[in-house]
Amino acid sequence: MNRRDFSFRLAGAVGALSLGNTANGFRDGILGAQNHNALRLNGARINQQLMALAEFGKNPYGGVSRVAYSDFDKQGREYVMGLMRDAGLDVSIDVAGNIIGKRAGSNPALKPILFGSHIDSVPDGGNYDGDVGVLSSIEVARTLKERGVTTRHAIEVVVFSNEEGGTVGSRGMVGDLTEKDLNLVAASGKTWRDGMRFLGGDPTKLTAPLKRQGDYAAYVELHIEQGGTLEEEGINIGIVEGIVGIGRWEVVVDGFSNHAGTTPMNKRRDALLAASKFIQMVNRVVTAEPGRQVGTVGKIAVVPNAPNVIPGRVQATLEIRDLDAAKIQRLGNRCIEEAKKIGAENGTTFSFNQTHNLKPAIMTPSVQKAIEESAKSMGLTTKYLPSGAGHDAQHVSEIAPTGMIFCPSVGGISHSPKEFTKPEDVTNGANVLLQTILALDAK
Amino acid sequence: MNRRDFSFRLAGAVGALSLGNTANGFRDGILGAQNHNALRLNGARINQQLMALAEFGKNPYGGVSRVAYSDFDKQGREYVMGLMRDAGLDVSIDVAGNIIGKRAGSNPALKPILFGSHIDSVPDGGNYDGDVGVLSSIEVARTLKERGVTTRHAIEVVVFSNEEGGTVGSRGMVGDLTEKDLNLVAASGKTWRDGMRFLGGDPTKLTAPLKRQGDYAAYVELHIEQGGTLEEEGINIGIVEGIVGIGRWEVVVDGFSNHAGTTPMNKRRDALLAASKFIQMVNRVVTAEPGRQVGTVGKIAVVPNAPNVIPGRVQATLEIRDLDAAKIQRLGNRCIEEAKKIGAENGTTFSFNQTHNLKPAIMTPSVQKAIEESAKSMGLTTKYLPSGAGHDAQHVSEIAPTGMIFCPSVGGISHSPKEFTKPEDVTNGANVLLQTILALDAK
Repeated sequence: MNRRDFSFRLAGAVGALSLGNTANGFRDGILGAQNHNALRLNGARINQQLMALAEFGKNPYGGVSRVAYSDFDKQGREYVMGLMRDAGLDVSIDVAGNIIGKRAGSNPALKPILFGSHIDSVPDGGNYDGDVGVLSSIEVARTLKERGVTTRHAIEVVVFSNEEGGTVGSRGMVGDLTEKDLNLVAASGKTWRDGMRFLGGDPTKLTAPLKRQGDYAAYVELHIEQGGTLEEEGINIGIVEGIVGIGRWEVVVDGFSNHAGTTPMNKRRDALLAASKFIQMVNRVVTAEPGRQVGTVGKIAVVPNAPNVIPGRVQATLEIRDLDAAKIQRLGNRCIEEAKKIGAENGTTFSFNQTHNLKPAIMTPSVQKAIEESAKSMGLTTKYLPSGAGHDAQHVSEIAPTGMIFCPSVGGISHSPKEFTKPEDVTNGANVLLQTILALDAK
Repeated sequence: MNRRDFSFRLAGAVGALSLGNTANGFRDGILGAQNHNALRLNGARINQQLMALAEFGKNPYGGVSRVAYSDFDKQGREYVMGLMRDAGLDVSIDVAGNIIGKRAGSNPALKPILFGSHIDSVPDGGNYDGDVGVLSSIEVARTLKERGVTTRHAIEVVVFSNEEGGTVGSRGMVGDLTEKDLNLVAASGKTWRDGMRFLGGDPTKLTAPLKRQGDYAAYVELHIEQGGTLEEEGINIGIVEGIVGIGRWEVVVDGFSNHAGTTPMNKRRDALLAASKFIQMVNRVVTAEPGRQVGTVGKIAVVPNAPNVIPGRVQATLEIRDLDAAKIQRLGNRCIEEAKKIGAENGTTFSFNQTHNLKPAIMTPSVQKAIEESAKSMGLTTKYLPSGAGHDAQHVSEIAPTGMIFCPSVGGISHSPKEFTKPEDVTNGANVLLQTILALDAK
């Protein structure tokens, strides 16, 4: 009988107590450190707070545009910092603009356990991506406070800054930002540097990593799946095996801009016609071999972009993701080779500039196991799966044992106003987060 | 022996006189009305003025952005109005913002002969499209003044407003603008209505046609070919058979926007992937049958247009041109049918809105003949060809006998800073314009 099997039966035994509990009805002193397996948080409160947070940057057609470093982002962060203080956390902002809420543990010799997510959104985003993890993390802290549970490790709840623009806050934390990066312009129009200052950070102090290997006992992030696998298969909880790597290229197609009325079809060097062949070829190359890899051309701009002018230049992006870095590079190279053939056929030239080469991040097996056991202790079904989306967890995994919990996304829809996770799935995910933190704390 | 054959020999006989002439050395009184066939204008002056006009809206990388209703457009017009006054023309601006320069004829019973073009450019355009016709027309008037030639018909030199944005000035002249049209926004950011006012027009008075059938004896426009046929075949002068009709559609492709990392390839409804198939299909359909028709997708916008989001919506344009209106509609309908099949294959929907249905405009045979005879009288080679580009002439042809003269475009390049017509070809075109006006005047 392992610890978890024991815990599950114990949880069953104290079920009545955990359901009807009051703020002070379930004290550490009563059940002792081994007996928190029955502890449950207030899921309704998380779901109410999700709706409240959704007001900051709300779009008339649904969802939010709470892009990083915007006024809405700042307002949302103020709201969240208030919740953190209510949860008994000691709140501060680090130099990378991340919000950190700390609570001391009973054993000062142990390193803190970090957990959290982000609240910034893509333009026209939804109300669950990031928000679920942040509000659930705060609720975990609040539950521990209300129930008078003192963990052995200190806990830190983190709200990473500018996740959607390039996991900027977590990269700042682990020392993965260059001076050049800080000049990049975010969706809000501010540079990362100015944005960090706007949020209360101090980018001049980002000359060294803020945290290093050994500074945290673990990092756990609860997030919506953003894909449709869990919902389709009726699974409650996803246990993330790893976060896919991302190869991204800027693609420029040079043709020749000319009058669309006077240039015969056989004399054209139409950059958009070549780009359209490229887009189809990418789809063919990426789907030609088995596996879960994805390839996308998501952004395109045409010059001069007029109905009566043959496109002379196209700028586009190519993005390939997989858990296997070698496969990303191999598929990318194949697309580049094929593009050259397309160019040769219609008098255009393709050039490529690789802008992203994010390595896959494998999640720590012991943390994956803790998540699985926590979920099973609650009678929830689980599935191991990769994360197709990038997350702050991939950077924190460079310095700490890291794991991610997924809860189901209805229809697999994300980065959209239609993004939705059912309230009960949010609550399940948050309770698995709580139990995972307690399990890691007990180790 | 026809009149032109006679003229050609006469022109040879007075060649020495026409080359070394001074402003007053070749008077109407000396050779008489039948003897103007040897008259030649000052081509060097036109080419110098082309360079001077190129300063208004000049781009650092070559060419101009003298878009209609911009400050540069207004400055260019001021320059041109100065040249018109120097040429002895009585200059005014009509309510549609067209500049008209008038010179009386000897027979007030005859209707005026109109000739001219435009000086506004596309964004990032060149220095020949429109400008050659305007400056040559002014030089024709100046030559008549300097040589003391009084035509039987009055002459009117016209600089049509906003040709590139939709042949607005010529449509205003013939009564082809609606209230709704006037609310359209030009490349300068001004509405057509505000733009006309900015140029000195009065759009409130556009309630009826400014000119009607019978108001002009003829209209002649000299223009660069904008295609490569004349240069490739070594021909001096193109005689335009007609101006192609234009069918234009707004195309919307609706798919579903989703996270590019988390959505498996087989679950996507990628609007850009569907649009790329559409672009290739248009090319295939348009080139599938013989003829000079052209089809172009020149403009595209993707929503949300991010590297990491599957495109949910694409807006694009489809444009088809030909001298045969029925063929335009048939090919357009075929593209619409094929698009529906593409949509059905990948879960997207295509919708079409036809925004333009410009009928082809056939040039008046007698004016075509006058151009041909004028060119041949100078020993220039000629070719009949369609105009793939739209021109003000197509609208004026609704109310007057109309013809167009083309001079060669190097490499067929137009709507580009690389647009170029050799100085000698500009001079040839201008002299053919002069001789055509004189021939029409003699009728």
